[in-house]
Amino acid sequence: MKKRKWALIATWRMAYEGVNSASYLLKCGEHSSKAITESIRTVEDYPYYKSVGYGGLPNEEGEVELDAAFMNGTTLAFGAVAGIKNIANPILIAESLSNERFNNILVGVGAEKWAIKKGFMAKNMLTERAKEFYQKRYNQTIGRGLSPYSGHDTVGIIAMDQLQNICVGTSTSGLFMKRQGRVGDSPIIGSGFYADSNIGAATATGLGEDLMKGCTSYEVVRKMRDGMSPQQAADATLNELELTLYERYGKAGDLSVVCMNKNGNVGVSTNIDNFSFVIATEAIPATVYLANKENGRTSYHPADEDWLAAYQMRVTGELK
Amino acid sequence: MKKRKWALIATWRMAYEGVNSASYLLKCGEHSSKAITESIRTVEDYPYYKSVGYGGLPNEEGEVELDAAFMNGTTLAFGAVAGIKNIANPILIAESLSNERFNNILVGVGAEKWAIKKGFMAKNMLTERAKEFYQKRYNQTIGRGLSPYSGHDTVGIIAMDQLQNICVGTSTSGLFMKRQGRVGDSPIIGSGFYADSNIGAATATGLGEDLMKGCTSYEVVRKMRDGMSPQQAADATLNELELTLYERYGKAGDLSVVCMNKNGNVGVSTNIDNFSFVIATEAIPATVYLANKENGRTSYHPADEDWLAAYQMRVTGELK
Repeated sequence: MKKRKWALIATWRMAYEGVNSASYLLKCGEHSSKAITESIRTVEDYPYYKSVGYGGLPNEEGEVELDAAFMNGTTLAFGAVAGIKNIANPILIAESLSNERFNNILVGVGAEKWAIKKGFMAKNMLTERAKEFYQKRYNQTIGRGLSPYSGHDTVGIIAMDQLQNICVGTSTSGLFMKRQGRVGDSPIIGSGFYADSNIGAATATGLGEDLMKGCTSYEVVRKMRDGMSPQQAADATLNELELTLYERYGKAGDLSVVCMNKNGNVGVSTNIDNFSFVIATEAIPATVYLANKENGRTSYHPADEDWLAAYQMRVTGELK
Repeated sequence: MKKRKWALIATWRMAYEGVNSASYLLKCGEHSSKAITESIRTVEDYPYYKSVGYGGLPNEEGEVELDAAFMNGTTLAFGAVAGIKNIANPILIAESLSNERFNNILVGVGAEKWAIKKGFMAKNMLTERAKEFYQKRYNQTIGRGLSPYSGHDTVGIIAMDQLQNICVGTSTSGLFMKRQGRVGDSPIIGSGFYADSNIGAATATGLGEDLMKGCTSYEVVRKMRDGMSPQQAADATLNELELTLYERYGKAGDLSVVCMNKNGNVGVSTNIDNFSFVIATEAIPATVYLANKENGRTSYHPADEDWLAAYQMRVTGELK
């Protein structure tokens, strides 16, 4: 009997543990929505990741404001929260909202009240380590008259289950030192994520303000619909966007995207060095890859042990 | 000497006064960004429009929460606010945010604080009339066990100036009886609005939760880029979306869109009866039209005096 296909792709090394667990769910025949919520929840719960969930960095007012989204590519149902505080798992709120006919996006206090009313877990999301890191970064940037706006790593995960249902989810604490109430691309449908099980899905990470100018995730899916492979669609979309941003806006921030088509084939594009991401399929156990672009084409290779060890040290070691 | 082209198109009859004033600005050579902010501000300030700005209907908690967005199609810069309270002109905040390099979208309390700090006018946006209407509608819907979720008229305006800069703006108080913090498509780039001066622009109104499932405004612009006329792009996008929604999601709400290409030609599509919209160009003074779709094609004609008089009566007359 031929093995049924399933696949996962996710932004950043931090998704590894979640993707690894979710790969067992898909192997056992679970729905891709479950793979998304469980994998992203794992990333949100891990206290050492500074850009997602618990342990995420606070905004300029010292508050951890979180954004998350979920989309079911089979029904096109989606849900999102933005600027939500003191809730343990924003991805679970987003998934829950995707089951509503109306009010699929909730922001701020209204989102918090609804989550609490529905019985989702409240939690103080600001850790001592995040406060310490925040202060150090503050001193290194604003304290020296430099722009603080650089860190912005969103976890975005795409899963296809054995019945070819494709779902996508995102979660982030947003741009470092963001203004209170700032929302990037992560909870914005079409920009931070998009999924259509008849075509495929994409999810983006980087400077949300720039990714949104090109509706990046929708455009990648649109190009796959028009016949491009996931790899072609990812590179074509980011190459066009970066060129357009330079021509029209004068500058471009960090831009990365991962995608998958309905056959479980994946693509990745980035304009940064060593963009890390994770793949797992029925044929490949969860593996961290590093992507780089040359002459408009992104290629990638598995991260070696030195890179992985240095990453672990940086994430859990003493703050510098 | 050949007259230089300029053009405006806007959703709903309520945009008429604003479009009319803005047409003089464009005639005098003003930038389309000015035409957008001035025209939408006029709609926001008019106390009798129940779905935008001052006089807009409150959410289920009795608070007027407003959304607005602005996009410059020449630079692709954009700004948006969502769930903002007690601010007179959300469109002015959105336009102002579009001039920032970071933090282009602000929601809730953070958005309000930033607006006040920047000197924008605070205002209690809840009128006695809106409270009265809200109570009547509450009794007619929830009071009778019916769904309250029907009204959702966003003003969306597209302007092309004499130098072919295309800008777009939106403003709304959102879905009637929305949950606190609910955000629809209006402030969501790609869904509620999108503009690229090299191609054209689009803006949508209707059930945001459904319009977002298809990234409606971006898709219309994408189809114009691929060579469709504005009218073809508008109808093709909404026809595909409605079909997809029925097939995949089982139902579709109200969907309407207006668009313009870089030559100032316009298009409109709707799945409701007598969708009203406004056009003004260097050749046509501001005029209210009514659109209807038959066999997948939308056609429109100027609203007659009876319709306009009945509208005025409904908007300013005694509440029923």
